[in-house]
Amino acid sequence: SSAQDRAGHQSLPSTRQPQSEADVNAVSPALSGYMSEAIDGDLWQRPQLTPRDRSIVTLAVLIARNQTIDLPLHLRRALDNAVTPREISEIITHLAFYSGLGNANAAVPLAKDAFVERGIGAEQLPPASLQLLPIDEAAEAQRAAIVEKSVGPVSPGLVKFTEDVLFKDLWLRPDLAPRDRSLITVATLIANGQVAQMPFHLNKAMDNGLTLEQAGEVTAHVAFYAGWPNAFSAVPVAAEVLKSRGN
Amino acid sequence: SSAQDRAGHQSLPSTRQPQSEADVNAVSPALSGYMSEAIDGDLWQRPQLTPRDRSIVTLAVLIARNQTIDLPLHLRRALDNAVTPREISEIITHLAFYSGLGNANAAVPLAKDAFVERGIGAEQLPPASLQLLPIDEAAEAQRAAIVEKSVGPVSPGLVKFTEDVLFKDLWLRPDLAPRDRSLITVATLIANGQVAQMPFHLNKAMDNGLTLEQAGEVTAHVAFYAGWPNAFSAVPVAAEVLKSRGN
Amino acid sequence: SSAQDRAGHQSLPSTRQPQSEADVNAVSPALSGYMSEAIDGDLWQRPQLTPRDRSIVTLAVLIARNQTIDLPLHLRRALDNAVTPREISEIITHLAFYSGLGNANAAVPLAKDAFVERGIGAEQLPPASLQLLPIDEAAEAQRAAIVEKSVGPVSPGLVKFTEDVLFKDLWLRPDLAPRDRSLITVATLIANGQVAQMPFHLNKAMDNGLTLEQAGEVTAHVAFYAGWPNAFSAVPVAAEVLKSRGN
Repeated sequence: SSAQDRAGHQSLPSTRQPQSEADVNAVSPALSGYMSEAIDGDLWQRPQLTPRDRSIVTLAVLIARNQTIDLPLHLRRALDNAVTPREISEIITHLAFYSGLGNANAAVPLAKDAFVERGIGAEQLPPASLQLLPIDEAAEAQRAAIVEKSVGPVSPGLVKFTEDVLFKDLWLRPDLAPRDRSLITVATLIANGQVAQMPFHLNKAMDNGLTLEQAGEVTAHVAFYAGWPNAFSAVPVAAEVLKSRGN
Repeated sequence: SSAQDRAGHQSLPSTRQPQSEADVNAVSPALSGYMSEAIDGDLWQRPQLTPRDRSIVTLAVLIARNQTIDLPLHLRRALDNAVTPREISEIITHLAFYSGLGNANAAVPLAKDAFVERGIGAEQLPPASLQLLPIDEAAEAQRAAIVEKSVGPVSPGLVKFTEDVLFKDLWLRPDLAPRDRSLITVATLIANGQVAQMPFHLNKAMDNGLTLEQAGEVTAHVAFYAGWPNAFSAVPVAAEVLKSRGN
Repeated sequence: SSAQDRAGHQSLPSTRQPQSEADVNAVSPALSGYMSEAIDGDLWQRPQLTPRDRSIVTLAVLIARNQTIDLPLHLRRALDNAVTPREISEIITHLAFYSGLGNANAAVPLAKDAFVERGIGAEQLPPASLQLLPIDEAAEAQRAAIVEKSVGPVSPGLVKFTEDVLFKDLWLRPDLAPRDRSLITVATLIANGQVAQMPFHLNKAMDNGLTLEQAGEVTAHVAFYAGWPNAFSAVPVAAEVLKSRGN
């Protein structure tokens, strides 16, 4: 509604204004056309990913690349697409570790504005301390052994924090499903060109329920939001993972 | 003129102010010295690239890396160096696909300000729909076959959008020469460390008329605007391409 | 003090406000918890790096990734941790070359605000021209020969600027110790995923006095500020360097 729009705009005094369609048209009518046709009219309508998944992937890409200008729009679209405030809160926290603390901190004031506008208070957010999901002890022991062997001789601190903070805490927080944590992690790796970490996380994502078709469509979706070169560089790595799983 | 400067500053309410030389001097007189001597006094004067090409490369690097703070200055310098409003409009649209939609959207309000300041209206911009350049059917069929084979098994959506949106539409828009599209694509790949995509695009750039000397100087220019590590990482890939072409 | 805080906030009119703890809590209590416990309470207290080194590394990562939102906080923390204004000035200048001019320019107004707030004037900053450190002629000749051979055929301009501006000038400026220049260069390479340039610079860093334990802890520290994927991708390269040095 226009009242919501006004409230949204009024609540963004400390950041750059989101670009308007009029602004885009004043610089590039072609870009405006691509946004309404190829992106909103085609990409977002494709059935290979639900609108909810597309919103989760888009938030991940924007936060992981520190592209704050489009975040106000996509935070609101995510809420409209049934991504819950709890999930948005956890997405931001997860990406603090998978793309850097500053990326999460840059998203915070914009998410706060969207939450205030929608009347979302503390009771709708996951607390800092809560009952964690049960851990898969065997899988964690295997992961820890591999990391101890490869990372231990270089950085004992990195080994410790990876176990204590990430795999025995962050990944077990219950308000974002493991499949969705994997979805945003894979989207982040593609969006930032970090292909060396893809084999572990794409395998984990598929173990967590991401399908082959969804993984391929994530790559296409990320192409628009993080650029074609990152999407194309992810393809051969994804192909190797799929082959190794017999797909 | 100072009237123009004032107008430019007044039209930037929604973004960070461009840094002034006084600000740089208040923090790092050395940086100020390098900017006036090594960069403006030496790099920009070198004949291996025209000022117009240097402006195109600089705009590409700043947009592709989301470095909005220096864009107001370089949008104006580009116009002074005979980059046309049509070309700037197309550069922003092209980089939406080669560096991500959010990068283009972040450039939009800054370009709008520069256009308003210079009295550039819609009649000087390319429309969304127009007569495309003729396509090289043989080269496109070859490209499509390679992508279908390598990308098709992973992401049919990426194959489709690459053909429909990029190679049968964006690259054929007439208001930015193919050679200049290649120039900004190569500059973007160097600036973002995306060396895996360089062989295809550096070959295409040279097919489109970029010379060996120009390609080398682009690397030196990008070093200043995207950092030495990205420039150095591009060199061995460029060397392989040049060798494969018999240079 | 609250007077200082007010002055700090008043002097930041042209940038995004630094996020407050209240803002983080309004979006992600979990992130707030990780920041106070895992990061400030654990990481920053570890003895493998001094608080001064952690501040230098953090500044480098934030500037090199253009994450301006946390810079106001960490510029002040750096001054509190005995990083001198001269060193901050040189860090910004050094990173203009190792991460791109726009990154340095984005840091300039924030550093200026911090300097004004702390009463730091021009007399506490290194001038543009000064007596350089003596050069190690043999090491420089060896470096120049390698670069001439590898880069010369592609980009003579890059060879020239690398020698004249970087290794015969920037690296010899006396107000940032060579060991600290190496520290920020290595942190930048890890933070931006530029592993191809790590063998040269990690070797140089250890030649300049960075220890094996410190290098490993830099990787752990950078994980929090630039994300786990970049830290993990640096590990195998660092392991190779350490092995080649007999560690």
